[in-house]
Amino acid sequence: MLYFLSDYTEGCHPKILEALAESNLVSQPGYGEDLWCQRAAEKISALCGGGDVRFLNGGTQANLLVISALLQRHQAAIAAETGHIAVHEAGAIEFTGHKVITLPAHEGRLDAGELDAYMRAFYADATHEHMPEPGLVYISQPTELGTLYSRAELTALSETCRRWQLKLFADGARLGYGLMSPACDMTIRDLAALCDVFYIGGTKVGALCGEAVVFPKGAPRGFFTMVKQQGALLAKGRVLGVQFDALFTDDLYWEISRHAIGQAMALKAAFTEKGYPLFADSPTNQQFVILTKEQKERLEKDVAFNVWEPLDDGRFAVRFVTSWATKPEDVQALKALL
Amino acid sequence: MLYFLSDYTEGCHPKILEALAESNLVSQPGYGEDLWCQRAAEKISALCGGGDVRFLNGGTQANLLVISALLQRHQAAIAAETGHIAVHEAGAIEFTGHKVITLPAHEGRLDAGELDAYMRAFYADATHEHMPEPGLVYISQPTELGTLYSRAELTALSETCRRWQLKLFADGARLGYGLMSPACDMTIRDLAALCDVFYIGGTKVGALCGEAVVFPKGAPRGFFTMVKQQGALLAKGRVLGVQFDALFTDDLYWEISRHAIGQAMALKAAFTEKGYPLFADSPTNQQFVILTKEQKERLEKDVAFNVWEPLDDGRFAVRFVTSWATKPEDVQALKALL
Amino acid sequence: MLYFLSDYTEGCHPKILEALAESNLVSQPGYGEDLWCQRAAEKISALCGGGDVRFLNGGTQANLLVISALLQRHQAAIAAETGHIAVHEAGAIEFTGHKVITLPAHEGRLDAGELDAYMRAFYADATHEHMPEPGLVYISQPTELGTLYSRAELTALSETCRRWQLKLFADGARLGYGLMSPACDMTIRDLAALCDVFYIGGTKVGALCGEAVVFPKGAPRGFFTMVKQQGALLAKGRVLGVQFDALFTDDLYWEISRHAIGQAMALKAAFTEKGYPLFADSPTNQQFVILTKEQKERLEKDVAFNVWEPLDDGRFAVRFVTSWATKPEDVQALKALL
Amino acid sequence: MLYFLSDYTEGCHPKILEALAESNLVSQPGYGEDLWCQRAAEKISALCGGGDVRFLNGGTQANLLVISALLQRHQAAIAAETGHIAVHEAGAIEFTGHKVITLPAHEGRLDAGELDAYMRAFYADATHEHMPEPGLVYISQPTELGTLYSRAELTALSETCRRWQLKLFADGARLGYGLMSPACDMTIRDLAALCDVFYIGGTKVGALCGEAVVFPKGAPRGFFTMVKQQGALLAKGRVLGVQFDALFTDDLYWEISRHAIGQAMALKAAFTEKGYPLFADSPTNQQFVILTKEQKERLEKDVAFNVWEPLDDGRFAVRFVTSWATKPEDVQALKALL
Repeated sequence: MLYFLSDYTEGCHPKILEALAESNLVSQPGYGEDLWCQRAAEKISALCGGGDVRFLNGGTQANLLVISALLQRHQAAIAAETGHIAVHEAGAIEFTGHKVITLPAHEGRLDAGELDAYMRAFYADATHEHMPEPGLVYISQPTELGTLYSRAELTALSETCRRWQLKLFADGARLGYGLMSPACDMTIRDLAALCDVFYIGGTKVGALCGEAVVFPKGAPRGFFTMVKQQGALLAKGRVLGVQFDALFTDDLYWEISRHAIGQAMALKAAFTEKGYPLFADSPTNQQFVILTKEQKERLEKDVAFNVWEPLDDGRFAVRFVTSWATKPEDVQALKALL
Repeated sequence: MLYFLSDYTEGCHPKILEALAESNLVSQPGYGEDLWCQRAAEKISALCGGGDVRFLNGGTQANLLVISALLQRHQAAIAAETGHIAVHEAGAIEFTGHKVITLPAHEGRLDAGELDAYMRAFYADATHEHMPEPGLVYISQPTELGTLYSRAELTALSETCRRWQLKLFADGARLGYGLMSPACDMTIRDLAALCDVFYIGGTKVGALCGEAVVFPKGAPRGFFTMVKQQGALLAKGRVLGVQFDALFTDDLYWEISRHAIGQAMALKAAFTEKGYPLFADSPTNQQFVILTKEQKERLEKDVAFNVWEPLDDGRFAVRFVTSWATKPEDVQALKALL
Repeated sequence: MLYFLSDYTEGCHPKILEALAESNLVSQPGYGEDLWCQRAAEKISALCGGGDVRFLNGGTQANLLVISALLQRHQAAIAAETGHIAVHEAGAIEFTGHKVITLPAHEGRLDAGELDAYMRAFYADATHEHMPEPGLVYISQPTELGTLYSRAELTALSETCRRWQLKLFADGARLGYGLMSPACDMTIRDLAALCDVFYIGGTKVGALCGEAVVFPKGAPRGFFTMVKQQGALLAKGRVLGVQFDALFTDDLYWEISRHAIGQAMALKAAFTEKGYPLFADSPTNQQFVILTKEQKERLEKDVAFNVWEPLDDGRFAVRFVTSWATKPEDVQALKALL
Repeated sequence: MLYFLSDYTEGCHPKILEALAESNLVSQPGYGEDLWCQRAAEKISALCGGGDVRFLNGGTQANLLVISALLQRHQAAIAAETGHIAVHEAGAIEFTGHKVITLPAHEGRLDAGELDAYMRAFYADATHEHMPEPGLVYISQPTELGTLYSRAELTALSETCRRWQLKLFADGARLGYGLMSPACDMTIRDLAALCDVFYIGGTKVGALCGEAVVFPKGAPRGFFTMVKQQGALLAKGRVLGVQFDALFTDDLYWEISRHAIGQAMALKAAFTEKGYPLFADSPTNQQFVILTKEQKERLEKDVAFNVWEPLDDGRFAVRFVTSWATKPEDVQALKALL
């Protein structure tokens, strides 16, 4: 079976496993006060031009903690209608008491002009105090469809957010695959300058688990307690520290990302060459193509991939994902099956 | 430095590291649908005489998910005043909307008679509908003071709970150290028969992270969605599955527990022999002794341990903890320092 | 100034004021255990063919209490995109931890077929456990646009709900104006038979405040405690009991409703006669018409009404509302101004 | 039957009924934007030396809204162990996500020295970030036992709160009975100067319903939306405005309070004269005496009163309450029965 199901179907990059083994017997305090958490935070902070770094376990956890920490209780978050928090997180944001307001998605992206118009209409409505006040904008970079915000688009969003006193939060569950894409025209420092908070995904970029949340202007008061309050504080916080320390040693994080992008581009070329239409034109590690029922059923025998959604004409949008673990020979084998 | 600070100051038992390495490149689906989660759940379920098993990441997470899943929204949990959920979990239960009612602790234990009296008084109070209805009793086995409920005590609690329609939930963050203590007169099957839900702690018993929640009578409807909703669902669920599969292969979990108990008893003997008074008489891997200010300051130079609480007479209750990683020579070295 | 702003711009019907005065010095216990609450509940229950009746203070309060009492914590409510809980209740449902899923509105109404299709697609989605499970359908009768569900439409919705194990909840903030409309083909008993819970609005139908929540199959366990928990329990519960007792004595509630409908129809006829287009064809006490900017500005000098929304062509959808307090001479005076 | 059950067993003071009748047909906008809300707020603000005034419906509602509006989400409220929010509000504060920490009660009062010691110990605890951070102190003036904080005691509490960055909130459900007590040495301006927020109870001091929340330093951002979000915003906000406008016209509020105090003192004198021991020495409208079982059973035949709690010796602490509606002849009749 060829596995292109997702970027979390194997364990972790061998260097992370090595780091876990090497550090295993060193005694260190718990709850993130170990030397690796400190070291990893320093490396990431330096990379981003400063700020506080906190390690959490997964994406939904990071999303709900950041959003509920930054919103006042009468406020809501804004997301694209395809945004992960609006679609696939089981009402996690609502469980913390906050509404998620959705705006149209353009291949997964919010449009700064539409956001501005929404906010103008909101405050023009005489009854706006009967509605939750928008307090934060959630985006994903890359988006759920693998697409990217350009530097200009993100700058426009950031300026719109500042105009309306909205915090800007970027979900970077696959951030490496975004920043290493040849189509990307921004650096992690740009992102840090334009957002109030974002995270650097580990789980989907080579780690066993873990996301590094970066607050370029400093973490909110009481964040440690909120992390504990949500059951998100690991006794062995080192598990995250060791992994991120390894990921940000010798550019491993970027190397993993580049490898996956390379394989994804090869995959895309294979599909295009064989005449398969794309569902979305993704420059990152998730590739979306359209299959007929017959193509889908035939491929399913040998390849593990994800059915994204059934299309109205009976065809299917499907997703193929690459990662650090994707072998070039598997991409070739897949191509041979097309 | 001799490390007796806690049972989460090192990584994981070498066999778990091996299992992670061996399974690393095997492709499997995410979210706990991998083969190891399934295998580990089957082993644990068989051990407990049946029931559903779910893997979570840490103790507070397990506590808040189980309690909020089992309570109706007008209900409260009852705990000993020293119970972890009442003291050191940052208001996690309250954040899910539920009050924690505290009853007196007897070396960390709830008393079935006192619980019964409390419930009788509750329903005798004409205004009881103005108070949250007790819906669940939370205990720890072993308790936060390392003490144990005997089989008779737990049976009495269980019967009291059934009489008043209270669910009984045992926090087993250190369950192995409880069940392997020579002082323990119950098995894991007894526990499963007497409780509605309990968990088998991994983080403090040799794993990098993870707790196995056991619902002997079946998991509540929607539990998977609740886990996701709280940010507790790991994309790489295998991380927990692989570890628990290793822990419950060849009795590793019990072996780790026995080792730690052996070291704890040696430690206790050393203190007693040297004339140090005990703060609590613990038969498990946490040992509580009383130090004078001078003793404390002298020991702190060479030994890492935990100050539990300052006593009124100027002395200190302190805690020494053993684990799979405790070396017999370290216990001897500590003894030499007393 | 002619007042057509809403149905809550005056105090209460004079007979309610009388009832408050007459009962004023009678001593009775608090918290809804008074004789009037009991009497009013019995009258309403008899009218509905049985069931439990509870009195609450306002519409949002009733909505959030009923929805959070009926949903399990991993569940969500479904509403029309124009539904009050989705639009104008400040995120009240989300504050209780539940997502509101919106479906298309057809002049304010949900379509049973679309609901069925949504549910079918939900369970067909392999990742549906990563989304909150729909648990309840919220509708308004009449809707926020003054329109009505026919008996056939409500029966279809009710059957769809039962098929998918969804509770059906009807917000009846203006129920009297719905049931007394000549266009209405259902009785309150029909409503009780088709819904799991609904409420009979008082605030907008002649009372100072208060809504009577009817649970045809019995109130959920712990509902009294939940009411208290949300700050919705009045010490002087009699305030609601006295008012509903008066409203359901000698058909006052229906008489008030009929009066308002009569005035609304006169108003609609006046607009139609004068050639004003309708924004929605409402058979109840809220009338929606379209005004040009000039018409709007001219009328605003002498008449208080509500701007519903600006239209794309520069005109405005506006709302005129009648109530027990609307005087026929005011409707004539308004007509003269058109 | 002589009614001393509570201060909410009758309707409202006749002058309030008159005000409701007089204002009944005046058309005004909803949601508290009417002229009476404005007028009442101005009167109360002037009385308190400035600040924002908001009208809510009841005590629990006021408590939960104020506390959840002022706390950050990782914070907890501190209350006396007898405090209403800790005992009789069905877990309302916890439902908003916040723990209630209890300190010893001294006839219902918190002690500033004990609060200070608690806070010192909290921050001295190395694990305090694993506990919710105290953010607000809740007191009642008068307390649940009818007792009063002296000006010196409240000043000490206020200073302690400022030292530890705690908001100070006074529940004044029976504030008039406190301030009008001959034993009271403070004014409403003193209270406004010493607290961050307090409320002036209406429900128990002559109104049908309603509490006036005073924020001497201004209401928190978004408070209106939070009120709506909790279902606490009345469409006919005038109901509260008219009542508070009447209560603060011609000193009605203070007159009602003085009347009730006079009757309470007569009651207390009667009990004392007849040799009944007091359970608490209350200078306000709630009187607590101790009855034997026989006395209790005999009195219950003719008098409605409240059993506070059974005492260990078989006797009962009971409560007699006076209000604007208490008739001097009823007090005499009760005396004759003793």
